[in-house]
Amino acid sequence: MNTTTSPQVISQEDLLRHWLGHRNLTRRVIEAFPEKDLFEFSIGGMRPFAALSIELLSIGGPALKSIVSNEATPYDESGSALTTKEQILQKWDEQTDVIKTYFNQIPLERFSETFNLFGQYEFPIIENIFYFIDNEIHHRGQGFVYLRALGIEPPMFWER
Amino acid sequence: MNTTTSPQVISQEDLLRHWLGHRNLTRRVIEAFPEKDLFEFSIGGMRPFAALSIELLSIGGPALKSIVSNEATPYDESGSALTTKEQILQKWDEQTDVIKTYFNQIPLERFSETFNLFGQYEFPIIENIFYFIDNEIHHRGQGFVYLRALGIEPPMFWER
Repeated sequence: MNTTTSPQVISQEDLLRHWLGHRNLTRRVIEAFPEKDLFEFSIGGMRPFAALSIELLSIGGPALKSIVSNEATPYDESGSALTTKEQILQKWDEQTDVIKTYFNQIPLERFSETFNLFGQYEFPIIENIFYFIDNEIHHRGQGFVYLRALGIEPPMFWER
Repeated sequence: MNTTTSPQVISQEDLLRHWLGHRNLTRRVIEAFPEKDLFEFSIGGMRPFAALSIELLSIGGPALKSIVSNEATPYDESGSALTTKEQILQKWDEQTDVIKTYFNQIPLERFSETFNLFGQYEFPIIENIFYFIDNEIHHRGQGFVYLRALGIEPPMFWER
């Protein structure tokens, strides 16, 4: 982990902690779905929350790995043929560990450098990372509506 | 604006640009709602998107002002009695200007200092600011579901 003593907007350590807090909350949203609804319930033709979770599983960990190894690996959801809530939660925890491992291996000076994510999205690494987090918040917000529509109280947004 | 030449996760300038990109997208989501649905449509007993927008209008700008002046002003939605889409969009643009003005006045060394937001939420300023952005993404994600349920295609998530 790089450290610096000069003032900064956010440290690498705190940004990781911020993301992990979001992942905890998303995990609780997955848990809150009844098994069947996780895979089947949807509104307005959108994907069920299991499919949104599998998208998230195919982004954060794999993307960080490819950033650290500096290889533009293509986007791939095929490794995540998950058919039960338990499998999704298990994969979620595995990928959280992947994120913890790789995030700290990004040298601080690389955050402002561009990286061609999945061989498709050429942006500064910090923008890629914000995309991982923001996309998770975005889809989880959709999950909150699904839960409400199912008559289930979602977890508190600020509980991380 | 504080600047530093040492490597950092994100600069103050880039974090503001990131937030303003999100505000552009949220503005387009407000615009995408038919007038009546903006104020009335909801799913699962949640608030209509106008009410969510008014919450967002009562957080970002007012909160930054109070951070800069270092005064813990209480949370207050009463100043935002907005009853048309046009009024909400106008207020949105006004508050975007407020955010542009005040964000740059936060000294870099204050981001890690705690501030008692609205006299209630005592957290480091960077966490407060992430809350403003994340809460906007979260509610906008809900807005995407409302639009889909209404048969309206939302804007692209990555268009900012």
